[in-house]
Amino acid sequence: MLTRADCLAADARDPLAAFKQQFTIPEGVLYLDGNSLGVPPKTAAARCSKVVSQEWGVGLIRSWNTAGWFELPGRLGNKLGQLLGANDNEVVVTDTTSLNLFKALAAAIRIQQQAPQRRVIVSERDNFPTDLYMIQGMIDLLQQGYELRLTDDTLSLEQALDDDVAVLLLSHVNYRTGAMYDMAATTALAHRHGALTIWDLAHAAGAVPLDLNAAEADFAVGCTYKYLNGGPGSPAFIWVAARHQDRFWQPLSGWWGHNRPFDMDPSYQPAQGIRRFLCGTQPITSLAMVECGLDVALQADMAAVRAKSLALTDLFIQLVEQRCGQHPLTLVTPREHARRGSHVSFRHPHGFAVMQALIARGVIGDYREPEVLRFGITPLYLSHADIWDAVEVLRDILDSGSWDRPAFHQRASVT
Amino acid sequence: MLTRADCLAADARDPLAAFKQQFTIPEGVLYLDGNSLGVPPKTAAARCSKVVSQEWGVGLIRSWNTAGWFELPGRLGNKLGQLLGANDNEVVVTDTTSLNLFKALAAAIRIQQQAPQRRVIVSERDNFPTDLYMIQGMIDLLQQGYELRLTDDTLSLEQALDDDVAVLLLSHVNYRTGAMYDMAATTALAHRHGALTIWDLAHAAGAVPLDLNAAEADFAVGCTYKYLNGGPGSPAFIWVAARHQDRFWQPLSGWWGHNRPFDMDPSYQPAQGIRRFLCGTQPITSLAMVECGLDVALQADMAAVRAKSLALTDLFIQLVEQRCGQHPLTLVTPREHARRGSHVSFRHPHGFAVMQALIARGVIGDYREPEVLRFGITPLYLSHADIWDAVEVLRDILDSGSWDRPAFHQRASVT
Repeated sequence: MLTRADCLAADARDPLAAFKQQFTIPEGVLYLDGNSLGVPPKTAAARCSKVVSQEWGVGLIRSWNTAGWFELPGRLGNKLGQLLGANDNEVVVTDTTSLNLFKALAAAIRIQQQAPQRRVIVSERDNFPTDLYMIQGMIDLLQQGYELRLTDDTLSLEQALDDDVAVLLLSHVNYRTGAMYDMAATTALAHRHGALTIWDLAHAAGAVPLDLNAAEADFAVGCTYKYLNGGPGSPAFIWVAARHQDRFWQPLSGWWGHNRPFDMDPSYQPAQGIRRFLCGTQPITSLAMVECGLDVALQADMAAVRAKSLALTDLFIQLVEQRCGQHPLTLVTPREHARRGSHVSFRHPHGFAVMQALIARGVIGDYREPEVLRFGITPLYLSHADIWDAVEVLRDILDSGSWDRPAFHQRASVT
Repeated sequence: MLTRADCLAADARDPLAAFKQQFTIPEGVLYLDGNSLGVPPKTAAARCSKVVSQEWGVGLIRSWNTAGWFELPGRLGNKLGQLLGANDNEVVVTDTTSLNLFKALAAAIRIQQQAPQRRVIVSERDNFPTDLYMIQGMIDLLQQGYELRLTDDTLSLEQALDDDVAVLLLSHVNYRTGAMYDMAATTALAHRHGALTIWDLAHAAGAVPLDLNAAEADFAVGCTYKYLNGGPGSPAFIWVAARHQDRFWQPLSGWWGHNRPFDMDPSYQPAQGIRRFLCGTQPITSLAMVECGLDVALQADMAAVRAKSLALTDLFIQLVEQRCGQHPLTLVTPREHARRGSHVSFRHPHGFAVMQALIARGVIGDYREPEVLRFGITPLYLSHADIWDAVEVLRDILDSGSWDRPAFHQRASVT
């Protein structure tokens, strides 16, 4: 049986252990929700203060040029691209994941209109809902006979990919289960059937190795406020394979995507390349802080991050099963490494109340319908001992039954 | 002839003079660009710091509930609505002006599909280009035979409003000229012809009195970073008349607009009311600071703001004509009060270079093609003496010809 001493010994050997010093984590908190909202890099407060007091307060309008605000989406995109297997000028940080998905979907649909019978968009019923909602919004808007085909498992996914399919839209790592697709194999499968792929990397970027170009993916979107520690609601990103960028101008064609935005031309002329996926003026304070998280992530070797992520998720599963084995917990996350992202989920019949009890004790994970306790494992700021300590609190809550209080059953919270 | 002493006397009588103390304005700057990016309210730096260090740093994911992040778009929308003539639950602060315009346009088009011959969207050639670009993106996406009809003056606007028109989309105050529409009369004109109206309030909100409900307008969008001093690229807003809100769900139908976003329902079910115009997760740091500007604006009597705005724009025009009268400056902005917003523009054959020379001397306005020197007049932080001093710098630059240096002709800047 594992002991806490074993965890401390593993921490002593951890090549990423020092990264924790680059983040602010409140006293008394074991934070297992970095896949929902990452923690602040220590540089974030100063960066934010500089944006407000210096760049805005002193530079005022001049900072669009002198502080590089106008170039931020592309400059941050190039940094982020290094974590995605993207080349320069393939990524912009902008808008929200939902909106970027709409842009990618519009572009993919338009490219596929060369094959007019392709009127199906395939996704998973278990995908993060906003992805499905944006597809539904697009279909309803177009009124061109598009339909959404939802699959429930890998087998039905293969069956769903027939010659009517225009686009396959999947999350690389599932928000609830943590299950991860083989991006290259799945993209190849879609391409064999003539479909284009859109990958939602919300729960993957910064957490697992990615190589979009090697996988020959077509489009990808994702967010920066989870494993990339960009701050609450920090702007999202979109990657478009270079071969597709100039084939269509996406319909959210605001002035930031214009070829010469300050000519004030009444006709839209898209910029060449990824800049045409920009739309309007970006929230600079939130956007600028994204760089703080990226700068930390870029210091880490992604192979080491992945190795530690798997070690910690293995450890978490093993400890829960060893120490909470008599309680009705069911592992939702794949055991197979190749199919696991960087969070671990267990079902419990009273999952909501158990999570509230954990949060009350400072072990912050989150709850997702139905019955799912979800624990984000962030290798840059969690240790093996943190995992041990978190499982000990879970064990105590379950052994004592202390989760079963009225306060822990109240669903007032919105997230 | 007016003197600086007259200006100081007017400042001594100014009921809004004390508001200047609530903003940070750098030493040595006369800021006449608040219609492009407003200045920081003094509370903004502390608010921003609190969001990063306390709400994000300590509250972490819990702050979606405990710090009210999730409710911010509606809470700020209700505050802002007081400046727009809107009721509670008619405004949300979210996304960008361009994106909100897309939502409004989609909703207006859908409502008008009861009258299928209406396939024309009318706007002005001189409108801010992103408005035209978003219309063009929508038309190209729909492929349903919509067309954009651009008008060049008020007469052609009346002629353009025939029975084919679905939507009239106008800026209430023109970004370049400062010309303002009579919203109620123009809306009534559109309605007589069966068209719905979308008003872009980017250069109006916080600057001129607005009463959207009294004008019986249909949709409005606008930004918070100009006269509302929300910070660089702070999120925009959308207002939808209550009678239209539930008639159609706009196609940027992300999870924030869902009726029960945390049920993780695979089917989109729009929230009732204005919340269905939300899409995805908002940039909280940038969004939270919007409240600082709103809280200042809400202390001011809008009639007094309008009176001072007209007094200062009158003064600016009068001083330029008196003191720079021998130079080739042409007033672009309407002299008639009822047709003037809160900025003043003059053409000059070398407008670009003259503006660069002004900026180099600390008088910050901006330049807009073609040849236009644009000066934003913000009653909450500009004095009559500021206007005098700014015009004196302009006079000196023109009299001395000091604008005609190579450096002032270089168009390296992007804004």
